[in-house]
Amino acid sequence: MRNTARWAATLGLTATAVCGPLTGSALADTDAAPASLYAPSALVLTVAHGDTAAMTTPVRAVTLSCAPTPSGTHPAPGSACAELRGVNGDFDALRGRDGVLCTKQYDPVVVTVDGVWQGKRVSYERTFGNECVKGSYGTSLFAF
Amino acid sequence: MRNTARWAATLGLTATAVCGPLTGSALADTDAAPASLYAPSALVLTVAHGDTAAMTTPVRAVTLSCAPTPSGTHPAPGSACAELRGVNGDFDALRGRDGVLCTKQYDPVVVTVDGVWQGKRVSYERTFGNECVKGSYGTSLFAF
Repeated sequence: MRNTARWAATLGLTATAVCGPLTGSALADTDAAPASLYAPSALVLTVAHGDTAAMTTPVRAVTLSCAPTPSGTHPAPGSACAELRGVNGDFDALRGRDGVLCTKQYDPVVVTVDGVWQGKRVSYERTFGNECVKGSYGTSLFAF
Repeated sequence: MRNTARWAATLGLTATAVCGPLTGSALADTDAAPASLYAPSALVLTVAHGDTAAMTTPVRAVTLSCAPTPSGTHPAPGSACAELRGVNGDFDALRGRDGVLCTKQYDPVVVTVDGVWQGKRVSYERTFGNECVKGSYGTSLFAF
């Protein structure tokens, strides 16, 4: 199967856009064949008004795919993917920007991220005190 | 906020492509404004070899967005969205096609769907006995 993968990579098949591969370590765990040079990265981001995702209805939801090229209904896939790569897919590592002033008003906004980042499943949820605080984190990832 | 929403709707802002709305009933629950005429539908589909998603690494992951137009890295967004609309977003209602013959070999494949379908959160997982059985369900939705 590895020979098949090399052959596919050599020909540069356009299937890379659709099919994600296994990483090297994942290959050791399963006997599935890598189908492209890219680990799959496909995410759905939602935002809702409330404390927890379970108790809320999403007001907006966008898709974000980062390999082989950034795409999706996210308004800025390129910079969102760059931001995610910058923190190595660790959403908690996104920090508030300096110089953003927000009130302490409690009007919570909950953001969720589900799907796959570089071959690993993602299920993330984060609640911000209000819309301004949400907007102060990172630059483009949560701006949808 | 409601006046702002009306103004945006009147101008027919292209933001409708990005921002999902609240449904009428959801509006009663929160004070957020509808941002488009479409309930958000954004999904990530994954496939992995194994019994359960939790125990497996996804080999492929694609995005699928169905409103306002079908899009995503899914190879056939149009027919996948049509199929989902046909079962009203009920993945369990997808039936195996007649006339497909599969062996009983147990080589399980697990499919997951996460995100939002017409404004409602989705977290779905289904295991098929083998790849052939998976391929016999629906037509295009799980064919990625």
